Amino acid sequence: MRERLAECRVGIIGLGLMGGSLALALRDHCASIAGHDVDPGTVAAAIERGMIDDDLFAAPGAIDVVILAAPVGAILDLISHLPDRLPGFFHLLDLGSSKARIVEAMRQLPDRVSPLGGHPMCGKETSGLDAAERDLFRDRVFALTPLDRTRPETLRIGRQMVDAIGARMVMLDADRHDRIAAAISHLPYLTAVALMQAAAQAGDEGVWTLAASGFRDSTRLAASDVTMMLDILASNRRAVLDALARVQVTLDQLRDLIEGGDMEGLRAMLDENRSRRAGLFRSDSAQVS
Amino acid sequence: MRERLAECRVGIIGLGLMGGSLALALRDHCASIAGHDVDPGTVAAAIERGMIDDDLFAAPGAIDVVILAAPVGAILDLISHLPDRLPGFFHLLDLGSSKARIVEAMRQLPDRVSPLGGHPMCGKETSGLDAAERDLFRDRVFALTPLDRTRPETLRIGRQMVDAIGARMVMLDADRHDRIAAAISHLPYLTAVALMQAAAQAGDEGVWTLAASGFRDSTRLAASDVTMMLDILASNRRAVLDALARVQVTLDQLRDLIEGGDMEGLRAMLDENRSRRAGLFRSDSAQVS
Repeated sequence: MRERLAECRVGIIGLGLMGGSLALALRDHCASIAGHDVDPGTVAAAIERGMIDDDLFAAPGAIDVVILAAPVGAILDLISHLPDRLPGFFHLLDLGSSKARIVEAMRQLPDRVSPLGGHPMCGKETSGLDAAERDLFRDRVFALTPLDRTRPETLRIGRQMVDAIGARMVMLDADRHDRIAAAISHLPYLTAVALMQAAAQAGDEGVWTLAASGFRDSTRLAASDVTMMLDILASNRRAVLDALARVQVTLDQLRDLIEGGDMEGLRAMLDENRSRRAGLFRSDSAQVS
Repeated sequence: MRERLAECRVGIIGLGLMGGSLALALRDHCASIAGHDVDPGTVAAAIERGMIDDDLFAAPGAIDVVILAAPVGAILDLISHLPDRLPGFFHLLDLGSSKARIVEAMRQLPDRVSPLGGHPMCGKETSGLDAAERDLFRDRVFALTPLDRTRPETLRIGRQMVDAIGARMVMLDADRHDRIAAAISHLPYLTAVALMQAAAQAGDEGVWTLAASGFRDSTRLAASDVTMMLDILASNRRAVLDALARVQVTLDQLRDLIEGGDMEGLRAMLDENRSRRAGLFRSDSAQVS
């Protein structure tokens, strides 16, 4: 069992934005990178561009580290079928956007596979290999969600990977990850979708002409890949519904304050959240416009 | 009555982000710029930095164009008191974020004042003179909302100003502006506030650690100036409540689809809004991340 990433033969399954970016970022930090994708053309393109060395399932010799970079549903499928296709011991990491269901599935893996959940907290509203970029993970948070059965060596490999790609590791359990991700990622996706729909329902094409940077930023997530988001919403259903209920209660409160003309109550609520927001992302403030 | 901006003595009341940026952008396109602000220190700073020539109310000679760059409530006050303080004819423009109440107040002005509503569709979550920048309006939409009584000369001055600062003019009536602004600006502010509150109510400080670019962009507007936003919500109450009701209905639909496990219905709704969003802001796509 190899414990140093630099000596590992890495295999990445799923060569989209995440898998492609990871291949680019890991290129100089491991012994070799094999890749696979449901689309053979994507594999061929990744080899031609030098992003990977060869097809994972045609690669000579064993793979030490397998990384699943696909929508949650595809990751769940892969976890159940992968041991039949890859012999011997390997570390298994994933980049899925919700973690509880994946970690649950990982518990069923044979002993010769040592699993570790992972989720890089970054993304773009574009997808696919063409959108991949080497610095996608740089300075971003990379959540690791170990299982009881995760071997110390696998956790070390995970840490080395996060370091190698310039990300910041945060370790937490899968359920907690999912509650947090619902609040800061899955829920903002739903409000972005709802804002798009509400704008369309205004019944005035002028909304698209006048929409400016505030609307652009507020709705960016609505352009996310739908299959990926459906998998997230289905696999993190409970936490998403809880977060959605909270935002609906808050919108009801805002409506009541505005409708009732309670400007002092409204000011208190707006001030409180302005202070919260002003304290976040300080280092980004120069870039935000 | 002067009809060419280049010959006009311009006065800007309110030297915050908007007024300060307008002073910078108009500097080379008019005869002189006077300014005023409730804070005398801001006026002094603007003079010292060469953004304005002198204090509007201490300026020698008449002002040809007065531009009100303040929160909506302050603009309404100014409209009622300004004729007492400034003699003779002048064009009166404003940059308020909601237009119906302002245009209504402008109707009461004496004949020697020719009013024109305006709203540049741009902003930042920072405010004040220090945040001002010359290119704030460049390539942004600038809405003009003329009144029946707006003189053709005033409309020409307005067009020249929009051209001079590099913005794109869109002319529409005040009520329509307000319905559109509710959907694309005031409502996204409320969802940003609600997302901040819902994240805080998750009861886990980890939300702030894991919050990434999606959350940052979705909540940026929650950092907007509260006094400005309170004025907007109060002055555009009806349209804001209508837009809020639409987004609440959509969030209810999304909740029902997720709760009921109707993945086909959910996919249809997500797909529809993804297509809508993907067609917007094409020219910005390279910058969005």
